Amino acid sequence: MLVNGKHFKTVWSEGKHVKMIHQNLLPFDFKIHTCHNYVETAYAIRDMIVRGAGAIGCTAALAMAQAFIEHFPDWNQIDNARRFIESMRPTAQNLFYATKFVAENAQNHIDALELAQLICSQDSNASKAIGEYGAELILNNYSVATHCNAGWLAFTDYGTALAPIYEASRQGKKLKVFVDETRPRSQGARLTAWELYNEGIEHYIIADNATAFFMQKGNIDIMIVGADRIAANGDVANKIGTLEKAILARHFGIPFYVAAPKATFDIHCATGKDIPIEFRNQNEVLYATGPNEKNISETILLANPGSPALNPAFDVSPAELISGIITEVGIINADYQSINKLFKNV
Amino acid sequence: MLVNGKHFKTVWSEGKHVKMIHQNLLPFDFKIHTCHNYVETAYAIRDMIVRGAGAIGCTAALAMAQAFIEHFPDWNQIDNARRFIESMRPTAQNLFYATKFVAENAQNHIDALELAQLICSQDSNASKAIGEYGAELILNNYSVATHCNAGWLAFTDYGTALAPIYEASRQGKKLKVFVDETRPRSQGARLTAWELYNEGIEHYIIADNATAFFMQKGNIDIMIVGADRIAANGDVANKIGTLEKAILARHFGIPFYVAAPKATFDIHCATGKDIPIEFRNQNEVLYATGPNEKNISETILLANPGSPALNPAFDVSPAELISGIITEVGIINADYQSINKLFKNV
Repeated sequence: MLVNGKHFKTVWSEGKHVKMIHQNLLPFDFKIHTCHNYVETAYAIRDMIVRGAGAIGCTAALAMAQAFIEHFPDWNQIDNARRFIESMRPTAQNLFYATKFVAENAQNHIDALELAQLICSQDSNASKAIGEYGAELILNNYSVATHCNAGWLAFTDYGTALAPIYEASRQGKKLKVFVDETRPRSQGARLTAWELYNEGIEHYIIADNATAFFMQKGNIDIMIVGADRIAANGDVANKIGTLEKAILARHFGIPFYVAAPKATFDIHCATGKDIPIEFRNQNEVLYATGPNEKNISETILLANPGSPALNPAFDVSPAELISGIITEVGIINADYQSINKLFKNV
Repeated sequence: MLVNGKHFKTVWSEGKHVKMIHQNLLPFDFKIHTCHNYVETAYAIRDMIVRGAGAIGCTAALAMAQAFIEHFPDWNQIDNARRFIESMRPTAQNLFYATKFVAENAQNHIDALELAQLICSQDSNASKAIGEYGAELILNNYSVATHCNAGWLAFTDYGTALAPIYEASRQGKKLKVFVDETRPRSQGARLTAWELYNEGIEHYIIADNATAFFMQKGNIDIMIVGADRIAANGDVANKIGTLEKAILARHFGIPFYVAAPKATFDIHCATGKDIPIEFRNQNEVLYATGPNEKNISETILLANPGSPALNPAFDVSPAELISGIITEVGIINADYQSINKLFKNV
């Protein structure tokens, strides 16, 4: 996608190095972060310099390729590297898909880099197809709600939840987007709003508390979110708050779609109960960072000094609350049979 | 309640002046704000130096008394003052209850001050009774969730949603509280957490997005919130996000109670559809203010520069989602018949 008129992907390799848009600095600053080895690349995942299901997968694949470049043919070291990379974000299925794909198929370091790049181009192609299928759900003059950021920043290009919005907009449909700010890390207010602003799509940031208000008023026609992991039965792990929105959408009879490539499905995970949920540092809730009026970045305390916070990063929305899953091969039902068929057909 | 060992109410009068805890500075600084005339007192309501249903009502009553002191016997000026005060926060029922009570019953400025002080002591007594009735709902080892701040800061003393928690704790019941941070103004993270911290009650601040996560895990036994206005049919207007929590509680089968004194009921308002909802400035969503690491207050941008926000301050939870309303005369059903009876018995 375009940033100030120049085409960028979220993450890519240059020789031995992995480069990525520094997403922790967005939307206030646009910089490229360079990782010189697999450990630095893994830390970029942990520190959320890169975040989002697909982008984590591509970055993990490229980190795996770096591990091959650094350690091949020492398979012990390569195996250690894989476990290290996989420990960075325990909920993200694309991460495990990517490390497995590279580690189990690469015969050597040249293979590894090619396989990692294949993951990246598959990600980009899948996002484009998701946009085309999903755009059919968005009618002219629709208001679309979304949570967190499942835009192109969360993948390598196009995105998942936002891809149908971009495609519908390109098709000339008039639409507007309600953007949940998505506390505690504000990926909606920061990243989704940044993407939509750059694409010139009408959008409004709302507090996470306000979604039901606008649903109750009939202001939201459809909600589309991304996914970090989808179990074999259609249960969806995604950013904390997704479960709330799925319940609200059901209450108000609003279609609630999940957009995700096949790489996000974990068919070895029977139900959402088997998905580990990452708890992150309480300071993400208690503090916020952003530029002050002099454009100097400041970190401020938001809460009562001394009060603790609990910070689950994801939740699991049960399959029965999901109207359908928009994949790169079409829109499917969120149930065991449909998901099973998706993987049997390959 | 106690602040550093000294007893305070949220708002009180001293001669012609109205004094109040400056709630915009909490929890980082504790200062008393003095209003020298009714216009300053009205602006304190508008600027949320004082906020919360009961505290707004008491402040409005004291502002009305100031108007009498300043303008009696010019009834035209007193009437103008009443309309001015009432225009500050259009959703708050206690405000209208208080201005009406003082303006329509006072024969002179001495009456007016006595009537305003009566409103304040009624508020405090009602809160205490709500605590006693509500405490029966909280069993030993319960986890209680709450939204926004309906603690003593929102009234003159004790509070409504938090009063049962304080009373249950005094009775020796072990309990913990999940505190929604309550974006965009963070009254949960700032005021409710400050109150609970000062009372030594175990509590955890959570992002508004995380309530369903903890409900799904079975970690929340009961949810109690306050109200800004209750319609004759039991529909409840309260802080934005309350509707979301009411829907979630129903989904998970968790009791969802509203705690409010009779002054919060508006029996002339047939249903929630008739309650005007205040939209506040978008900057409340886009910016946050708090102390940096050097304890200097900074205002930072949270969102993408240039993206607009929509900021409804309240929402309406339909009566059918409410398990009951805890009032100063007992716990009643949220329906027309029970509410009608409440006011017929007087």
